[in-house]
Amino acid sequence: MSAAQPPRTRIARHTVDAVYVRDLDLVRELIGKVSFTEMIVLQLTGKRPTPLQTRVLDAVLVTLMEHGFTPSSIVTRLIYDSTPEAMQSAVAAGLLGVGGTFIGTMEGAAALLDDIVQSPDMQEAARAVAQQHAQAKRPMPGFGHPFHKPDDPRAAPLLELARAEGAAGRHIEALTLLAAEVDRAYGRHLTINVTGAVAAVLGEIGVPAQIMRGLAVVSRAAGLVGHIHEEQQRPSARYMWDPVAKNIPYETNPT
Amino acid sequence: MSAAQPPRTRIARHTVDAVYVRDLDLVRELIGKVSFTEMIVLQLTGKRPTPLQTRVLDAVLVTLMEHGFTPSSIVTRLIYDSTPEAMQSAVAAGLLGVGGTFIGTMEGAAALLDDIVQSPDMQEAARAVAQQHAQAKRPMPGFGHPFHKPDDPRAAPLLELARAEGAAGRHIEALTLLAAEVDRAYGRHLTINVTGAVAAVLGEIGVPAQIMRGLAVVSRAAGLVGHIHEEQQRPSARYMWDPVAKNIPYETNPT
Amino acid sequence: MSAAQPPRTRIARHTVDAVYVRDLDLVRELIGKVSFTEMIVLQLTGKRPTPLQTRVLDAVLVTLMEHGFTPSSIVTRLIYDSTPEAMQSAVAAGLLGVGGTFIGTMEGAAALLDDIVQSPDMQEAARAVAQQHAQAKRPMPGFGHPFHKPDDPRAAPLLELARAEGAAGRHIEALTLLAAEVDRAYGRHLTINVTGAVAAVLGEIGVPAQIMRGLAVVSRAAGLVGHIHEEQQRPSARYMWDPVAKNIPYETNPT
Amino acid sequence: MSAAQPPRTRIARHTVDAVYVRDLDLVRELIGKVSFTEMIVLQLTGKRPTPLQTRVLDAVLVTLMEHGFTPSSIVTRLIYDSTPEAMQSAVAAGLLGVGGTFIGTMEGAAALLDDIVQSPDMQEAARAVAQQHAQAKRPMPGFGHPFHKPDDPRAAPLLELARAEGAAGRHIEALTLLAAEVDRAYGRHLTINVTGAVAAVLGEIGVPAQIMRGLAVVSRAAGLVGHIHEEQQRPSARYMWDPVAKNIPYETNPT
Repeated sequence: MSAAQPPRTRIARHTVDAVYVRDLDLVRELIGKVSFTEMIVLQLTGKRPTPLQTRVLDAVLVTLMEHGFTPSSIVTRLIYDSTPEAMQSAVAAGLLGVGGTFIGTMEGAAALLDDIVQSPDMQEAARAVAQQHAQAKRPMPGFGHPFHKPDDPRAAPLLELARAEGAAGRHIEALTLLAAEVDRAYGRHLTINVTGAVAAVLGEIGVPAQIMRGLAVVSRAAGLVGHIHEEQQRPSARYMWDPVAKNIPYETNPT
Repeated sequence: MSAAQPPRTRIARHTVDAVYVRDLDLVRELIGKVSFTEMIVLQLTGKRPTPLQTRVLDAVLVTLMEHGFTPSSIVTRLIYDSTPEAMQSAVAAGLLGVGGTFIGTMEGAAALLDDIVQSPDMQEAARAVAQQHAQAKRPMPGFGHPFHKPDDPRAAPLLELARAEGAAGRHIEALTLLAAEVDRAYGRHLTINVTGAVAAVLGEIGVPAQIMRGLAVVSRAAGLVGHIHEEQQRPSARYMWDPVAKNIPYETNPT
Repeated sequence: MSAAQPPRTRIARHTVDAVYVRDLDLVRELIGKVSFTEMIVLQLTGKRPTPLQTRVLDAVLVTLMEHGFTPSSIVTRLIYDSTPEAMQSAVAAGLLGVGGTFIGTMEGAAALLDDIVQSPDMQEAARAVAQQHAQAKRPMPGFGHPFHKPDDPRAAPLLELARAEGAAGRHIEALTLLAAEVDRAYGRHLTINVTGAVAAVLGEIGVPAQIMRGLAVVSRAAGLVGHIHEEQQRPSARYMWDPVAKNIPYETNPT
Repeated sequence: MSAAQPPRTRIARHTVDAVYVRDLDLVRELIGKVSFTEMIVLQLTGKRPTPLQTRVLDAVLVTLMEHGFTPSSIVTRLIYDSTPEAMQSAVAAGLLGVGGTFIGTMEGAAALLDDIVQSPDMQEAARAVAQQHAQAKRPMPGFGHPFHKPDDPRAAPLLELARAEGAAGRHIEALTLLAAEVDRAYGRHLTINVTGAVAAVLGEIGVPAQIMRGLAVVSRAAGLVGHIHEEQQRPSARYMWDPVAKNIPYETNPT
């Protein structure tokens, strides 16, 4: 319950006339000089971003921000209607849906890619992973999409962008190898989906699998604020609520 | 409880091989072509951002992201320690602190600035506002800071950046007029603080007061993810918890 | 930002072989000896409950627990589907909807009843309150119901139970006086609704208006856990999500 | 993404002049006639509670409600201070801490007990479980306590209460067998802790492991409301925040 030495922080400190983030003077070195995305890289890594990092992270945050009516955006709109005096509650409620079902596949894919990248024989490792999942009839994280068929349109452009910006390419290579083995092992074409591609390109810029979900959370937060703003202008929450009560009928409890 | 016509959305739609946000093709027109900040403007306004909007919003998001150990970041770290399997919970919990006490002053300041901007005589309106608050001994939203004295170092640079980037300047003028009247009415110097400056520059780029809090939420989400990442590397939650239990002693209930 | 003396707590303390809540030994004096409802009264007030308090609070918690498909229960089911590994997130998300729109009326009603109870002439005070609201065309907190007409079936039984259990009756009297004046001022019958009745009976047992919302939160938490359990057995979240995306059509953004 | 038949609900329905929960008329059959705890059993199971269920659930909810300053109660107080206008946010934030670290052990213990109960030779099964955990040097869910030594004072009374109220005793027997094997396998005495005892007695009344966490959430919600009420009377949040910023020093980032 306690350790020998108290921890330290490297994130921020302030004096009476300055604020420092990751040792940099917020006013003199950051405001007006770095973009929000660059600031996010600095906050996470403690280092100024490379152009590759910024370009890839911008692309990822742009990609994940908005998906129309999803559980998260529906939840945000319903909670905003119930408690308009606390907008942050509506965002927070929607973000609670950025969990295992949807975003867990990104982390799952990232972990598999890490394993493959660290293997002496990447091809062999990819084959083993694909076969294990196929034989166990488990879904392959980062592959397949219920709606976008045959291919998720967002995957290839993300990979191409990272390559074009000079990524070393090991995680992308691992994903590409895996994709070929997945099609073979499952006996049909499974698209690399957006979470698989994001896992690969974030791996390219050094984002650890264990914090990737956090970036999805930031991106989705911005999307949800857009839904709140539309809800402020054209309330729709009641149109979400009424059909549910009508469409799911009541039945008597068994005795 | 219901209106005549169902609402519509203008945010997003998708087809089998494309995703559209605000009518633009995510893959062909947005990924790799706009920054996250530009995407946020698009999401909120339905229009491509102007350079002024992007520059000002970047500055605001950079400014608000990180403040060291605040209630939000402490909460995020404590919840992450309790439920590391659901990182989004930790971010959501911290965001629930972006409420009236801290961020409400931004909205309060924005509302006052809107009133002044819309007055036929801005000087007169600013004086009235300052005097009313001073006489009622109410805190002036957007003014004063418990730690940064005599001036909040973040305020002036934000205003200067917006001016330098070509903002029309009405909200900034309103804030400047108000600042002079506030010093007079309260009989001492009260700094324009960061929330006052943010309210003014967001007003310059057309962000309505009612959605400003949402942008603070997005910015803080990124800051909180940084705290989670540091917590993953150097756990500190137990050092936050133990002192509380020790420092707040128990006393018997009155009978 | 800091006060002269550190605060103290009167809620709980523990030793190596005992836990005390409000000075009582959890193991020897509480477990198996008090009901959950009695424990809630103890936790809130620091005193053992009277039979009246327990009976009224049980009735209130039973009344508020469950309302079928409401924003809160829909939100809880959607978030549970997205993140089944963190059930507490689903409950928390649903509770974020226990805000101003639905439960704020309870607090509003309680505040009005407090004012009337403290007036030298309750009848006169009730008339003034009703007339002010009617003339301002404001909704009367605690009155009216969109569905239960002419009367909310839950209101009268709560008031009768409190009377039958020996409540002093001042808050109930205030509500009854107010109801008559409301019908007169609005020129039509407005039912005392469940939030008005709850405000009155909680006032009878000494629950301050400022904490009433917390009791609704506890009661709703139990209801939401029931929805999660049904969702575990018969998943319905997808049936809530699909219709929304279908029923709210996309329209192009204005240029 | 969709199933063949829409789901149904058995929880609640209403007519113009009545509300039904689990087929029972809320006004005529529940308000004033059942306790909150009895209502929780009804909500979860769809059946009227047995006296054993009510007695055991009351004991569990009383036991888990309050633990003084824990991450959850600290979080609730900090969020309440930041956003007093939305009390439900403070409760929700605290509940987000009822996750894997603290309450996951209850579910882990319940799953082990289920396995043992279903084994043809319970003694043998208990031994296998204990040995596997000890050899893997994994913590044994439901056993051990960092502070309450040698024994958690809450465990034995819960088990005794369930037995005294007529529980069949299979889960309690499984826990007792396991406890003896745990001491042997680990080579030292590990107390049955409160989560282990709760898992056993909830198993006795037919609560599935997968929903147990929900009951802890309800109980803790009530505890957190008590902390908010104390915070309303004697604000302490600032005393929680200041020490953190002071005690966790800043250090420069490595270059």
